[in-house]
Amino acid sequence: MKFQHGGEIYDKEVQYDFSVNINPLGMPPESKKAAIAALEMSAHYPDPRARRLCDELAVKEQVMPQNILLGNGAAELIYALCFAIRPGKALGFAPSFAEYERAVAAAGGSMVFYDLNDQMEFAPEEDFPDRILKEAADDIDLLFLCNPNNPTGMTLPEDMLHKIGKVCEDKRIVWCVDECFLPFNEDEERFTLKHKLEQYPHLIVLRAFTKIFGMPGLRLGYGMSSNKKLLQQMRACIQPWNTSIPAQAAGVAALHSEGYLEETREIVRVEREWLSRAIQKMPGTKIYPSETNFILFQARPDLDRRLLEHGILIRDCSNFRGLEKGFFRIGVRPHAENEALMKAWKLIEEQEKQHG
Amino acid sequence: MKFQHGGEIYDKEVQYDFSVNINPLGMPPESKKAAIAALEMSAHYPDPRARRLCDELAVKEQVMPQNILLGNGAAELIYALCFAIRPGKALGFAPSFAEYERAVAAAGGSMVFYDLNDQMEFAPEEDFPDRILKEAADDIDLLFLCNPNNPTGMTLPEDMLHKIGKVCEDKRIVWCVDECFLPFNEDEERFTLKHKLEQYPHLIVLRAFTKIFGMPGLRLGYGMSSNKKLLQQMRACIQPWNTSIPAQAAGVAALHSEGYLEETREIVRVEREWLSRAIQKMPGTKIYPSETNFILFQARPDLDRRLLEHGILIRDCSNFRGLEKGFFRIGVRPHAENEALMKAWKLIEEQEKQHG
Repeated sequence: MKFQHGGEIYDKEVQYDFSVNINPLGMPPESKKAAIAALEMSAHYPDPRARRLCDELAVKEQVMPQNILLGNGAAELIYALCFAIRPGKALGFAPSFAEYERAVAAAGGSMVFYDLNDQMEFAPEEDFPDRILKEAADDIDLLFLCNPNNPTGMTLPEDMLHKIGKVCEDKRIVWCVDECFLPFNEDEERFTLKHKLEQYPHLIVLRAFTKIFGMPGLRLGYGMSSNKKLLQQMRACIQPWNTSIPAQAAGVAALHSEGYLEETREIVRVEREWLSRAIQKMPGTKIYPSETNFILFQARPDLDRRLLEHGILIRDCSNFRGLEKGFFRIGVRPHAENEALMKAWKLIEEQEKQHG
Repeated sequence: MKFQHGGEIYDKEVQYDFSVNINPLGMPPESKKAAIAALEMSAHYPDPRARRLCDELAVKEQVMPQNILLGNGAAELIYALCFAIRPGKALGFAPSFAEYERAVAAAGGSMVFYDLNDQMEFAPEEDFPDRILKEAADDIDLLFLCNPNNPTGMTLPEDMLHKIGKVCEDKRIVWCVDECFLPFNEDEERFTLKHKLEQYPHLIVLRAFTKIFGMPGLRLGYGMSSNKKLLQQMRACIQPWNTSIPAQAAGVAALHSEGYLEETREIVRVEREWLSRAIQKMPGTKIYPSETNFILFQARPDLDRRLLEHGILIRDCSNFRGLEKGFFRIGVRPHAENEALMKAWKLIEEQEKQHG
C-alpha cells in the first residue's frame, strides 16, 4: 500500500505533526477518562445499536436517532455508502479528500471531477449547479462534497448548496456532504445541512468525532440522513460491531465536554490568523483563505523535506488530484507549535540566503 | 435492525453473560494497560499499516508480515472479502456464523448451504469434499468454513480440510477458513491451516483477538493469505485507518501475555467438562461434543427466558439457519459463574416440578 494521507508519523522522527487537521486542543479530558473506564467493559461486545451515543447525538445535532448511522470513523461510511449505492459514476471536486475516489473505485464505479481553480481560490464557479451539475446529472448516481473542503479550506455558500440540492433531488442523485470540518467554523449553523434532512431525502451528511474532538486514534464518525432505505442499505454493508466500546464512551463524554467547542473555535480562529499572517510574510508563498482548522498554501517545493529535518511534519499536497508539488497543508496547532513551525521555516530561509 | 447475535446485554438486566463465546479469563491485564497508555496517543491517527502489530503477529503466527491483513474485528474482513470477490454464489455450512451470509448478500451474491445434521452431531459427511463440494464447485466462487464451527463446536478433521483444499484449489474457489475459536483448542497446531498458505493460494484464514484474548469491545481481527492480489483487493475495500490505536496496542501486548494462552486452554478444558457433565444430568437435554470454548445443547425451549429471570443470558440459537427453538449455546465461563448457571437451572426445574 502506498499511503497518501497526513498523519504518517510512524516511520519518521516527528516532534510536531502539522500534517493532520485535527483539534489543536487534543481529545477532551472527559473523553479520555470515559474511554479508560470503558476499557473495563471491553471484554463485552459493543452495543451494535450504540443506543446511548445515538440518543445523545440526536439531541445534540437536533435530528432523529433513527436518522443517524455510526461509523468506525466517517471514512468507513464513505465506503459503506459506495457499496450500498454501487454508483456507476460519481462526481466530486478536485482537489478534495482522496477517499471518495478510492471508495467509488472499490465499489466498481468511476469518479469524474470538477476541477477547482487555483485562480478562483478553489471556489467552484457560481453557475456550477445549473451548468456543470445539470449537464452531468443524467450520468452520475452520487455527488461528493466536502464542506469545508479538504485540503482547500473553502466553504460552499449556502445558496449554492441549496441549488446543488435542488438538482440532486430533481435528478435523484444521492449527495453526500462531508461536514467533518464544519464544527471548527463559527458559522456552522449557517452552512450545515443537518437541519434539512427531511427536505432533501437524497442527502447524507457525514460528520466525525475524529477532527473536532481530536480522537482520530479511536475511530468514530456518523452519517445523518432521512433516507431510511439508504441507511438500511449502508448498514447492511457494515459489520454489526463497527464502533468500539472506548470510542462509543469517548463520544458520549465528548458531547458533554463543557466549553470545549467554544475554546476550540477561538484557538482555531486566533491561530489561523496568526499563522496566515506569518506565512504570507515568507518569500514566494501564496496562501488560500481558510474557514476551518487548516491552511493550504504554496511555498518552496522542498519545504516539507526541510521542515522534517527540524522534526516538523507538514502535508505535501502534490498527491491531491489537481494540485502539484509546492502545495502544502498545515493543521492549525497550539501557539507554541505554530511558533516552532515558523521559527524553523525562517531558519531554513536564512540558511538558504547564506548558501545561495 | 433486528439483531441476531449473542452479547445483547444492553437492553436487559444481565449479571452473567453466557451468550457470547469469549475467553473466560477476560482481557489480559497487559492488554488493558497497553490500551490505556495508547489512549494518550489517540489524538493521532492510527498507523494504517500497523507495522508493529503486523511484525509481531507474523512472528507469533509464523507467517510473513505481508501475508497479514488487519481488521476492525474479523467480522470486517468477512465483508471486505465479499466486496473484493463479489461472489455470485458462496457455499457454507448450516448452522454456522450468520455474518457470512449477510456479507455475501451485501456484496450482491447469494449463499447456498450444506446442512449439517443433528444426527451426525453436526459433522459433515465424510464424502463432503468429493461429492457435495465437487458437484457445487462450478457454481460457487467462495466457500466459508468455520473451524471449530460456531455454534456447534465441531472441528473439521485435518484430512477433510485438505480434501476440501484440493477441490477449492483445482476449481479456483476462494476458501475462507474462520479459525477464530481454534486457539482455545489444545490441538490448534494440528488443525490450523495457517502454515499452508503457500500450498493453498486460494485460502484465507481468519483469526481474531476478540475471542481468544477476550477483547470484543476493542475490535481486532486479522486475515492470513499468501494471495497478494486477494489481500490487495480486500485492502482496497477498507478505509486506511480501520484498526484503532488502543486495539493495535492491546493486540501487541496480548502477544506478550505470559502464560495466558496455557491458562485459557486449561480453564476452558476443565470447565467445559464440568459444564457438559452438569448439563447432561438435566432432564430432557441433549448436548453436542465441543472442542472449543462454547457448548451447543438442546433443552426446554423456555430455558433462555427462565434463566434471564435470574440475570443469566444464554444464546437462543433458533435464529441460526438449520436450528430451531430449544437449541442453546453457552460460552464456558469461570467456575463460579458456571455454578451460578447450573444452580439457577436446577431451581427452575424444581419450581417446574412443584407447579407441574
